[in-house]
Amino acid sequence: MAAPMWMARHWPTNIHKFLFHSQKCHLTFSKYSTIKQSIKDILERGSVGKFGETEVQGWIKFAREQKHIVFLHINDGSTLKNLQVILDPAQISSDVNFGSCVSIKGELVPSPAKEQPVELKASEITVLGKCDVLEYPVKKVPKQDPDYLRSIPHLRPRTDFIMSLVRIRNAANMAIHSYFQKNDFLFIHTPILTSNDCEGAGEVFKVESEKLIMAEGETNDDESVDKKQYFGHPTYLTVSGQLHLEVMTGAFTKVYSFGPTFRADSSIGRHHLSEFYMIEAEMAFTRDLEDIIRVIENLVKQATKEILEKSEEDVHYYLKNYSPQNQQNIISNLTNKQFIRIPYTEAVEILEKKNNDFQFKISWGCDFQKEHEKYLVKYCDNIPVFVSDFPKELKPFYARVNKDDKTVSAVDLLVPEVGELTGGSIREDRFDILEDRLNKLKLADLYNWYLDLRRYGSAPHGGFGMGFERYLQSLLGIKNIRDTTPFPRSLRNCKL
Amino acid sequence: MAAPMWMARHWPTNIHKFLFHSQKCHLTFSKYSTIKQSIKDILERGSVGKFGETEVQGWIKFAREQKHIVFLHINDGSTLKNLQVILDPAQISSDVNFGSCVSIKGELVPSPAKEQPVELKASEITVLGKCDVLEYPVKKVPKQDPDYLRSIPHLRPRTDFIMSLVRIRNAANMAIHSYFQKNDFLFIHTPILTSNDCEGAGEVFKVESEKLIMAEGETNDDESVDKKQYFGHPTYLTVSGQLHLEVMTGAFTKVYSFGPTFRADSSIGRHHLSEFYMIEAEMAFTRDLEDIIRVIENLVKQATKEILEKSEEDVHYYLKNYSPQNQQNIISNLTNKQFIRIPYTEAVEILEKKNNDFQFKISWGCDFQKEHEKYLVKYCDNIPVFVSDFPKELKPFYARVNKDDKTVSAVDLLVPEVGELTGGSIREDRFDILEDRLNKLKLADLYNWYLDLRRYGSAPHGGFGMGFERYLQSLLGIKNIRDTTPFPRSLRNCKL
Repeated sequence: MAAPMWMARHWPTNIHKFLFHSQKCHLTFSKYSTIKQSIKDILERGSVGKFGETEVQGWIKFAREQKHIVFLHINDGSTLKNLQVILDPAQISSDVNFGSCVSIKGELVPSPAKEQPVELKASEITVLGKCDVLEYPVKKVPKQDPDYLRSIPHLRPRTDFIMSLVRIRNAANMAIHSYFQKNDFLFIHTPILTSNDCEGAGEVFKVESEKLIMAEGETNDDESVDKKQYFGHPTYLTVSGQLHLEVMTGAFTKVYSFGPTFRADSSIGRHHLSEFYMIEAEMAFTRDLEDIIRVIENLVKQATKEILEKSEEDVHYYLKNYSPQNQQNIISNLTNKQFIRIPYTEAVEILEKKNNDFQFKISWGCDFQKEHEKYLVKYCDNIPVFVSDFPKELKPFYARVNKDDKTVSAVDLLVPEVGELTGGSIREDRFDILEDRLNKLKLADLYNWYLDLRRYGSAPHGGFGMGFERYLQSLLGIKNIRDTTPFPRSLRNCKL
Repeated sequence: MAAPMWMARHWPTNIHKFLFHSQKCHLTFSKYSTIKQSIKDILERGSVGKFGETEVQGWIKFAREQKHIVFLHINDGSTLKNLQVILDPAQISSDVNFGSCVSIKGELVPSPAKEQPVELKASEITVLGKCDVLEYPVKKVPKQDPDYLRSIPHLRPRTDFIMSLVRIRNAANMAIHSYFQKNDFLFIHTPILTSNDCEGAGEVFKVESEKLIMAEGETNDDESVDKKQYFGHPTYLTVSGQLHLEVMTGAFTKVYSFGPTFRADSSIGRHHLSEFYMIEAEMAFTRDLEDIIRVIENLVKQATKEILEKSEEDVHYYLKNYSPQNQQNIISNLTNKQFIRIPYTEAVEILEKKNNDFQFKISWGCDFQKEHEKYLVKYCDNIPVFVSDFPKELKPFYARVNKDDKTVSAVDLLVPEVGELTGGSIREDRFDILEDRLNKLKLADLYNWYLDLRRYGSAPHGGFGMGFERYLQSLLGIKNIRDTTPFPRSLRNCKL
């Protein structure tokens, strides 16, 4: 059988000859360039005055036919902006319409309109993929209904609403990695499958292989292994990578993770996802909560600044079309203002004065509800606020007990719109106190391995976790958290 | 209740006064600096001739007491190298031993030994966490048994074996992101929970909430929803993000994902993990397999070069202690040689000549076994080799059918040690052909949404997936894939 045509151009037919020639071949790694110039590149080229022949591929976002001229707006996802294309009506077929995928050759010329620096005078248009516009579920309206769009997740990324979000998410991801890498944190893939279910407070997902699988050479001798379960025991989806990061601070000074976490939440509200991303960091050699606070504040500030820089156009699109009116002010507080710090006890004093207005009355020892968190942020002029030193009973066993023996070195960061964005603490590094707490919770056996970390060369350490989607929600003022991610999962909803 | 002592230094007691002062406060974002200088920084400082007072924190990796002097080697995870510390025997207590966590103040001086440029003359040592060395499961032997170490995953990261790996993994992660970002690919979080199970060939994990959860306001009207299941229908852990990336190439030109994928594998061999990371990329506007091949080759080459640059010391440690003898040569092929390309048909001709030596005899139409893949790589002088244009029946429904109607535009990259490292293809973008293939597989209903992508503005596109742990295995010559990740999961094994 002969090799396909296209291979003949690139591939040697005689492999031995090829092997001989490939010795010490020095490759240059040019920027990946086979796919034609992006519209972003073309618009940038135009804005520095470089015109001429070009080829562009993308989807038609807008089409208008006049007597002697056809206008198309083409987008390829590289930027929010479309490229305006001018055609002669004779050039186009009936397949050239909203939604269809096209390839266009032509000349890039300065545009007479002031909306764009350049436009493309087309010499040739090819329809790569037709689109029956009457049937197409993505309608031509500029502002689609978010609820409706969530019902068609396979086509939803074709709207500006989600396209801008996807570019912002990309920038946010990189900005967060960039902060940690610059500060010498090591990125750790904490496991998704785990035998710990304790932290999930019952809201966990169980994982089991679909088929019963027997291991090769397995005998009935080992009764500690339940052979009906793939892993030999119940296994869950992670709710947090913290304990695994703590394992790492037995060897490394600074580590972080940034991966999916899961909650089998019973809520179908606009603040909950069953699958969401968490940024978690852990630092050895500190007993000072201020160290944790400083990292959280710098992370939020620097990531936000980088996102604003890299995704200016897309963030602006959100501010203009979807965010609440004061969102610009909220963003500016995120980057320019020093975050506020209030001990829990002081926060309760502030809240108690407003108890008449709250559904849940607050007093020392109570956990905050969303209404309290929101009031505190409002009280602080929409500046993010750290609340610290919570009563021991409100925080998990690993939070380090303060000298007063009533509170723990734990801190939450509250932000506008979403309330709690991060939670962190200094971890209990003293073996006796930790063992005592675990004994009282009847968890000492289960967490014997965790006690080992304190038994052998325990380092004082602390860390925090931050919800990625909540961060995006707060940054952009997105009403429903399901619109912060391209494929949202929640109770009764796991499409595709 | 008074605020704890440490807060008094940092926090304003009068929040209103603070709010007033914090208006327009301009923060400088200095490098996170509360935690003391890392040993890496200290060694670098020493190597440029900057000595003087310093403070260091870490774990004791080696201790030797002579009559008038004590030598300690301290490590904090920032580098493979230890800092040598010199003490007077009178300075130390019995708690200063292998494994304990310490903080040391002293003077950095040029070292008389040639192994290190500097050493620390200690003036003060504090034990932060003791370590009972007789009980400590991480023994003082330099080369621990990998099988034993996997049985103590919470302490395993304290060995050079895993510490080097963790730093290399970090560098590899960033190198891969860096390649895609530089080439304008957008990072997508494809979902972990999915209602598709088709690709897993039965080897999938099912996910269900531990408790039965009813949705608020749910009635019995909607019979399409199984209320005993959290999502209303069976839900699985992803085996690939490809189809979701294809959704994205309906709107964006270049996308990629890099996240966990899962297989309920029945194998307990040294080449399989139940939880592993996949790098997947998808590109619109191409029907040329060479475009996919070029991205794979450039990704592997550039990522490898960056890892070698950033983790030189750690890679060298692997080469010296754990890799096969010819690993240096294999790495050099990865970065310096043009990868070889062979069509499947030619590859089979090469293999058929050796059929006497194979356990599984090969002929046109057969899938490759590991023995065949390994032979092909060996035949190509350990240079990675692309095999392309497989028989249609060997590849999934989405691979684009070639003109011969017998083969598809699909490609595998084979590398030394692990065999198949990546698999890619041009995707079938023609509605009729795709529908026909799905009908024959009785999948057209289930994948109606996937057909929609071709119904409305279909773009020609293609992509590939690459196993991250397999890449590390191939790069470092790691025998067992469970040693490429800090928390390996496999059949009957999900510790912590």
